[in-house]
Amino acid sequence: IVNDFIFRFNKGVVYNFQTRVDRNILVWYTDGSHWINMKPVLETLVDRGHQVTVLIPSSSMYMNTNEPARFHYEPFNASFSLETIEKFLEEFLQFSIYEIDYMNYWEIYIRFINIAKTNLQYNIQYLDGVVKSEVIMKKLKEGNYDLLLADPINPGSDLVADILGIPLVFSLRFSIANNWERHCGQMPAPPSFVPGAMKNMMPYINYCACELMSKADIWLIRTYWDFEFPRPFLPNFKYVGGIHCRPAKLLPEDLEEFVQSSGDDGIVIFTLGSMINNITKEKANMIASGLAQIPQKVLWRYKGEKPEALSANIRIYDWIPQNDLLGHPKTRAFITHGGTNGIYEAIYHGVPMVGIPMFGDQPDNMIHMKEKGTAVILNLNFITAEDLRDAVNTVINDKSYKENAMRLSSIHHDRPMSALEEAVFWIEFTLRNKGAKHLRVQAHELTWYQYHSLDVLGFVLTMVLLIIFIFIKTCSFCLHRCCVRKGKAKRKAE
Amino acid sequence: IVNDFIFRFNKGVVYNFQTRVDRNILVWYTDGSHWINMKPVLETLVDRGHQVTVLIPSSSMYMNTNEPARFHYEPFNASFSLETIEKFLEEFLQFSIYEIDYMNYWEIYIRFINIAKTNLQYNIQYLDGVVKSEVIMKKLKEGNYDLLLADPINPGSDLVADILGIPLVFSLRFSIANNWERHCGQMPAPPSFVPGAMKNMMPYINYCACELMSKADIWLIRTYWDFEFPRPFLPNFKYVGGIHCRPAKLLPEDLEEFVQSSGDDGIVIFTLGSMINNITKEKANMIASGLAQIPQKVLWRYKGEKPEALSANIRIYDWIPQNDLLGHPKTRAFITHGGTNGIYEAIYHGVPMVGIPMFGDQPDNMIHMKEKGTAVILNLNFITAEDLRDAVNTVINDKSYKENAMRLSSIHHDRPMSALEEAVFWIEFTLRNKGAKHLRVQAHELTWYQYHSLDVLGFVLTMVLLIIFIFIKTCSFCLHRCCVRKGKAKRKAE
Repeated sequence: IVNDFIFRFNKGVVYNFQTRVDRNILVWYTDGSHWINMKPVLETLVDRGHQVTVLIPSSSMYMNTNEPARFHYEPFNASFSLETIEKFLEEFLQFSIYEIDYMNYWEIYIRFINIAKTNLQYNIQYLDGVVKSEVIMKKLKEGNYDLLLADPINPGSDLVADILGIPLVFSLRFSIANNWERHCGQMPAPPSFVPGAMKNMMPYINYCACELMSKADIWLIRTYWDFEFPRPFLPNFKYVGGIHCRPAKLLPEDLEEFVQSSGDDGIVIFTLGSMINNITKEKANMIASGLAQIPQKVLWRYKGEKPEALSANIRIYDWIPQNDLLGHPKTRAFITHGGTNGIYEAIYHGVPMVGIPMFGDQPDNMIHMKEKGTAVILNLNFITAEDLRDAVNTVINDKSYKENAMRLSSIHHDRPMSALEEAVFWIEFTLRNKGAKHLRVQAHELTWYQYHSLDVLGFVLTMVLLIIFIFIKTCSFCLHRCCVRKGKAKRKAE
Repeated sequence: IVNDFIFRFNKGVVYNFQTRVDRNILVWYTDGSHWINMKPVLETLVDRGHQVTVLIPSSSMYMNTNEPARFHYEPFNASFSLETIEKFLEEFLQFSIYEIDYMNYWEIYIRFINIAKTNLQYNIQYLDGVVKSEVIMKKLKEGNYDLLLADPINPGSDLVADILGIPLVFSLRFSIANNWERHCGQMPAPPSFVPGAMKNMMPYINYCACELMSKADIWLIRTYWDFEFPRPFLPNFKYVGGIHCRPAKLLPEDLEEFVQSSGDDGIVIFTLGSMINNITKEKANMIASGLAQIPQKVLWRYKGEKPEALSANIRIYDWIPQNDLLGHPKTRAFITHGGTNGIYEAIYHGVPMVGIPMFGDQPDNMIHMKEKGTAVILNLNFITAEDLRDAVNTVINDKSYKENAMRLSSIHHDRPMSALEEAVFWIEFTLRNKGAKHLRVQAHELTWYQYHSLDVLGFVLTMVLLIIFIFIKTCSFCLHRCCVRKGKAKRKAE
């Protein structure tokens, strides 16, 4: 595969622009599902001979320097412990999943502001661990990096790229109300037909220091037209949704046996994502009771306390090979919290979904899938066992859900190159060309009133008013002279 | 190459969506450089097993049914002779090249309107030859075509695609003031930073029957970011500039010998394009005299009367293998009329240009190249032999021109797939998916005031005014009541 990749990249080239020189790539720290998504890109960059160095804070939940990885780690100190972060996350989840549905707007607003403030504080402390550490900054400067790759959800990468004077490639799913893309990236978004993700989550918690962010050479957006509603975009925005997706591998023997035991009814896969290890016992019982009523076998990824009565068609696992299961021919439906990674695996394999969105972009993601006709949405706080049973039955028995899932899958696969290849192509493009300035719209150099041509409009309007004014004045002057003369003539005649 | 192509298209595919079924493609008639540009796409479609049928009018200058081509022709009658069209073209060129520079705005306006009118008449007569011919329409309906591929410069393809009920793919360089792209394709183009090509050519001669044009599934735009200034675009707009470009082949022996005789000075290639076979004798002499003063050998493609004194460094040819010459290592500069095809060959091979633009998009094209630092522009009507000499010397001796040409060439080659491959990919994508509806923005369904959210704005404004009105009325009512009471109280007290 690597050889074919290189061959393709060099094919049809007249000059040797694309002769690959192994480069030195710096990667900004990130965490959670963002890190899961970043990893396949880094693995491929290493496959292609680049040296990849990843900044990693002392308090990280997902990044793990002990993991036998093929890239270097550059650890830095965060001035708070992993426990502090985990506690904050726990509180955030408690608020997002349970409390929010029983609060009024004002309470939500206050709570949201507080969470945003704390989040910003942690982000600044992380950033201080890098830019205020002389040791780290010295190391980074001496590292002779050729490019900085960053998910902007953890702020500061733009600042460091600017200090080091190296090109910057962003990889992001979206920002709240698409603020960064629109204001810092200059992506046009007429609100009449381009919905801003999570627009209802005002006030914006995104900081909007566009001066540095706008210097990003390439914006790798982690969606594609299988998920996204069509919208205007710019030459340096590349839609690479599904970076981490891959064909299903064979299942472990015991799992395959359970899957095969489902017969023609097939299986349902159920997970609420890597963040949620626990739900209330009451909810777990309700779910178990609902899933007991469907003919499919259910594979449930769940680390919390097991429900009291578990029907024979349900098995609970600490961990499941989610992608391999979604790609299994017996899979009929996917019950998901609606994270982008899981949704893309379902799109890749053409599996209809029942969404139980919880926080962040999850509700927004599931609305996309519902609109595309491949998902039903439920609210964990208000559903009964029967609602869950009915939803699963609907997406399995109403053939339109499967058909739409297959159509999205078709769109996902039917592109000039895979998402991962395209992401790596544009990172290497930025390396080869030391940036991508020729893809940067002139709009970055305009003020808001210049962008909307208000300066031109103002000038034209002033001119028109001036001409009308001069015209009226001239007329009145002439009329006056005329009248005066006539008056004089009259008086003379008298 | 074909095998690799197929292999690449099918690579990484999980389901067999992309199993290639040979399809039936109808191609709208076109002429001149547009036909030159369309042909490599059709050749590749035939290579890939599709059946390609091209509509061809009885009066065509470039399309030739006798040519040993690998696609079918479907001839139709145009109700005028080839001579009529050639005479019209002759008049148009006379006006565009010589007369226009000596006319005032009003004269240009009148002449332009007349030419546009005549052009529209011919276009309608061509179109009548297709849609008003029962024989042709019956044949087209019975042809069971899967897709219509058209350069919209010859109008009517949208109508016929609609009648046949088949997907439509456009291939175009641009429309005047980008009217079609903006109004029919809904491509956003803020005038503050997106220049409209040939905006000065008001009044627009493009007909703007957007209802049918807007149904086009894919718009293949025949430029790329090597030529274009970065701008917003849409998911169904694909930039495939340089479709016809290919590596240089070896030159015929006599030509190679002349080229080699140039030594270190190298050669200059000079052509005014396939449309211009003749210039005035005076101009030819001036050009010959200018080119006699440069150290390079000159290969001049010219069918007109030869200049009186021809310096030994200049050779005149009826035809030259332009692409092979531009790709020759001895080539130092390209003197061109600035047609898109020639410019793209120069970009492909990294050759600096001296532009002598004449009509249509040529002045606009050359401005792009000048702005990118790879060309000098001259006006045939006002230059002297010395101006031409100096211009050629400048682009050869000032190293920045060559450097910029090589930078554009680098951008041109450094993309995920070649322009031709990408064009063919999206045509086949439309075939496989029976259209590309998922790439069509919702903006098509909005009126202009909805697009700019003026309906929402109007509603909000009305509400605000209403609230203010009610507030004022309430206040005045209260005040009134207050005053009246006080008055009564006063009177009582009295």
